This record gives sequence, C-alpha cells and structure tokens, in this order.
Amino acid sequence: MKQLTIGIDIGGTNTVIGVVDADGNILVKGGIDTPSHGDINRYVKDMSEAIRDLIKSVTMVNPEVEILGIGIGAPNGNYYSGTIEYAPNLSFKGVVHLVDLLKAQFPEYQHIALTNDANAAALGEMIYGGAKDMKDFVMYTLGTGVGSGLVVNGDLVYGHDGFAGECGHTTLIPDGRVCGCGGLGHLEAYCSAPGMKRTAFELMVKYNATDSLLAGKSFIDMESKDIYDAAVKGDKLALEVFEITGKYLGQGLADTVHHLSPEAIFLFGGPTAAGDYIFKPAKESMETHLLPIFKNKVKILPSQLKTGDAPIVGASALVWKEKR
Amino acid sequence: MKQLTIGIDIGGTNTVIGVVDADGNILVKGGIDTPSHGDINRYVKDMSEAIRDLIKSVTMVNPEVEILGIGIGAPNGNYYSGTIEYAPNLSFKGVVHLVDLLKAQFPEYQHIALTNDANAAALGEMIYGGAKDMKDFVMYTLGTGVGSGLVVNGDLVYGHDGFAGECGHTTLIPDGRVCGCGGLGHLEAYCSAPGMKRTAFELMVKYNATDSLLAGKSFIDMESKDIYDAAVKGDKLALEVFEITGKYLGQGLADTVHHLSPEAIFLFGGPTAAGDYIFKPAKESMETHLLPIFKNKVKILPSQLKTGDAPIVGASALVWKEKR
Repeated sequence: MKQLTIGIDIGGTNTVIGVVDADGNILVKGGIDTPSHGDINRYVKDMSEAIRDLIKSVTMVNPEVEILGIGIGAPNGNYYSGTIEYAPNLSFKGVVHLVDLLKAQFPEYQHIALTNDANAAALGEMIYGGAKDMKDFVMYTLGTGVGSGLVVNGDLVYGHDGFAGECGHTTLIPDGRVCGCGGLGHLEAYCSAPGMKRTAFELMVKYNATDSLLAGKSFIDMESKDIYDAAVKGDKLALEVFEITGKYLGQGLADTVHHLSPEAIFLFGGPTAAGDYIFKPAKESMETHLLPIFKNKVKILPSQLKTGDAPIVGASALVWKEKR
Repeated sequence: MKQLTIGIDIGGTNTVIGVVDADGNILVKGGIDTPSHGDINRYVKDMSEAIRDLIKSVTMVNPEVEILGIGIGAPNGNYYSGTIEYAPNLSFKGVVHLVDLLKAQFPEYQHIALTNDANAAALGEMIYGGAKDMKDFVMYTLGTGVGSGLVVNGDLVYGHDGFAGECGHTTLIPDGRVCGCGGLGHLEAYCSAPGMKRTAFELMVKYNATDSLLAGKSFIDMESKDIYDAAVKGDKLALEVFEITGKYLGQGLADTVHHLSPEAIFLFGGPTAAGDYIFKPAKESMETHLLPIFKNKVKILPSQLKTGDAPIVGASALVWKEKR
C-alpha cells in the first residue's frame, strides 16, 4: 500500500492542489481559482471535488494507495484552530473554519491540518529537504513578502495563538521604510523582492545613476530578476543592491539567532536564486552582528525545496508531521 | 517526606546557595566567594561542603526531608553539556564541566543541571511564579545586562547549542551605542541599568540640562535608582529617560513577539521596580510595532519572583522541571 498525502496551497489568485508521496514528489496537480469563491461553502465544495478528481486520477493508475490526509498552507492560517483569520489578500473575509469544513467533506481522513505558508515551507524542509536531521532550524521565505517558520526541538513554533514566526515584521531600521503591513522599518520592506527594488531606486537616487542597466525600468516594472540580470552583467548599482539587501538580511538573521540559536537558517524564494550575491553579504553581516558565543556556528543554507512545488509539498508535510 | 531542592547562583563575586521548597521558599541560604577560586577543583570542593552544611542545618530541624537535586544558574551556562563556557566575568576560564564535577561529589542525586541566569529566572517564573499556567512566555531580565529566557510549548528554548535566548543582543539601532559585548546598537546598551544612565546623560547633553536633579551625579556614580528617585520628584529629564527606555524596550519586545507570539512577557530586575514609568511606554511602543494580528494580545507583566531570591529560586526550578 503506497501512502500519499494531499497538499494544498491557497493563494490570493489560485488554490493549487497536489497529491504528494513520502519523498515529496508531486504525482498529480490541479487547482481552482480562489477569488471567484467569495462564498466559502462553494469554495470548499469545489475544492473537495478537485481533490476527489485528483485522487481518482491516481488510483486509476495504482489502486493500491492510501491517502493519509490533507495539509493546507494559507496566509494567516492558524494551526491550532484550523482557521484562516482576516487574510488581507483572500476573498473570503473574517475567520474561516476551513479545517472543520473539509473534515465534514472528508470524514475518512484522520489528519486534516492547516498552517501559514512559511510554516508549511519549514515543515517541507524538515520532512523532505535539507533539515531532515535537524531539531532546531529556521526558514525564511523571501518573495513579495518575507515569511518565516521556526522549528525548536523538532516542532514548529506556533506560539500561544498559532501565529508565531512573523520575522519579516521585526524592525530593522527604526522609523524606516513603510512596510506592507503599515509598520515602519520592517525586514520585509528591505529584504523582499519589492524591498530590493526599493533599494535599487534608492541607490539610483543617491548616485543619479543614469548609467545603470536598471535606469530604464519604471518603478512598477522592475523585478528582482532584473536586478539579478544586471548584477550578472557587472552593473555596479545592481551589485550594491545585493550587498545592501544581504547586509539588512544578516542583521535580521542575527536577531533570530539571538532568540533561538538554530543549527541553520534556510532561505527560500525568488531573491535567493541569486546565490552568493545574497548569501555572502547576508552571512558576513550576520556574523558581524552575532555575540562571540554564536559566531561561525550557524549555517545559512539555500532551501532544497523546488521553487514552484514548495508550497504544495510543504503543506503536505503537515500530514506526515502529524502522523509521526 | 518533604521534598527540597538546592538552588545555586554563580556570580562573578559570590556564589550563593539555597535550600528551596516546592513553593519557592528559601529555607536556608549560604555561599562562598567565586573569584578566589581560580582552581575549579577547589571551588567545587568548597561549594560541595557548603551544600552539605546547608542540608545538615535543614535536616537538624526536620529529619524527614528528601533532597531531589541541584540546579545552577551561571553566566554562559550550557544546559546540554552542563558546562560554563568562556564566561567573561568568572575567574575560571575556558570550558568548565561543572555538572560532571558536582555529580562526582553527589552521586546520590539524579537531577543536577545548569543553565544561564535568565533561563533559570524563566523556569522560576514557570514553577513558582506568574507563568504557572502558561505554555508560551518570555522572561526579560533587566540589570547590569539584559538577559532573556524563552519558553515554547512548556519547555525552555535552548537552541542547537544550549545558548538560545540572548535577546539583549538583538540590534535595536543599526550602528548605535557600543554594547558590553562589543556589538553596536544592541538592546542591552539601551534597556539595561547602565543603558538608562547613558540615556540620561544623552538627554543632559541634548538639553544642556543643568537644572535636572541628575545633573550633579558623575557618570560613574549615577544608578538607575537615582533616575527613578528623580522621576518620582517630577524631574522632566528623568521622566523622559523612562519614556525613551520603554520605547526602546517595546521595540525589542515586539521583535520577540514576531518570533514567538508568547502569551506574556515578564520583566524582571532593578529598572522594573519603576513600575508604570517603564511598563507603560514599553507596552505602548510594543503595540505600535506589532502586526495587527498580535495587537492587544500579549501581556507585559512584572515578574512575581522576589528580586534578591530569584537567581537561587530560579536555579532550583531546574530540578523541579527535570523531575516533572
């Protein structure tokens, strides 16, 4: 009997569903769109149908499978209550009891659980990725925002209310840049993809850098990929963006080390594709900020999860983790 | 049979030893001085004698007692290895295997354990104090330095190497004040007792405040108690010191909440005796820095441990915690 899990990634635009094996491979993938489902009951019904269709497509090939449960990653997902609470980018508002609703649809599954995207990514790293043998590590996800998942003594840190691990909203620069959340000077405002873009424009302003390869892009059009491409071509300004982003990130990572002293911090997401451009200054800056007792002890590692698959695979890890 | 524990607080000057009951009362107290014991073996021998003397003095009054073990709080104390590692203020250098040495002296005790002072304080709060019913909370100890102990899911966070919980060394102000550890802009450089003094002098410089009640004290003589006394008398500058210290502290506490989402943060130590002078601005500042999802959820509470006894009582809590 081959054991499989369902992983679901709920985003503002799409809800992607995959059937995942014990090694983190996605056997089949499907999805529904999220925003047209303002009505949560219709959303759950359509999602459940999509899940059943995917399971059918798997059992048609191999009838000898057992589905262990469903893991869901969602913005503002609360593991304790199984709810999504006031997620700013989702069309259903307030507190949505998604796990309860899915349990009504799938009473045969013992494990149906939900957490936020970054926690799911951390679990993915622990179950399938580079943290298999680690008890204490941290995951930072860098993208449109910056999320984090903290693992202490082999378990995710959920905090008293289920919402722990929002390191993207620690303060790097008092009264600094306005963050997406309205706060000032948060790590996310410097180290997310849009944060890197803001740094690029800040430097263009500083140097009046009409000669930069980035100078022809509008504020709305520039992406972190553009900064990477320019850096590869030797563009000084683009290279400095990575230096500065790494410096900011290292300061934040040091704060996390001073809290938790993890064995490693994994970095995941678009900006990390730049490799040493970001890892090197981040490591240097982290070491500069650390107490002697922590220096040269904590690894900064690229996530081993595949970029596109990670949200589903991470979500599915919830089921394996619960089953342990 | 009355069950008792031994709590030991190792400081740079004195090593204080107490016999502690299940309610956190110290029955008898004794000690030896630390610095004259550069030789660790002599230190352990003298400490062991002092422990035996104290136990004797208890059993003389009540022969029906059982000693469960020994808990030790020490700077740079490592719970995992039972060692004190490179403690800057202690006379024995390098890595000292204190737990092993004490086990050789007291083979009859199952529980002999060691951790750093702030972790011990957090355990004390959990076993005897205000955190008895909490699973997720944080302890900040404000004194000459700033220490912290983090409790997640009912257990202390030790990290991969045993040294987690150094929140006093998170960065509040990039390239800010020089911290005792050599780092820049750390929380400890602003929110410790000496940090408050530095803020007082900063403000005297800013306002040329010869009219402040604090203006007659030298930099070496001023203590945080002086700032409190001046504040009580309505001294504007002293009141602003508390406002600013609270503001800094609140920023740091918010960073901790964004990591761990604790139910409460306990504050312990000299500066917290100022009550609302420090708690009010700290709370306001923390709330300002928090994501909406965390606002008005996390309590800031005064520690319920008695100031003088806390280090011993906290250390003894290690034994009760291990026994659970």
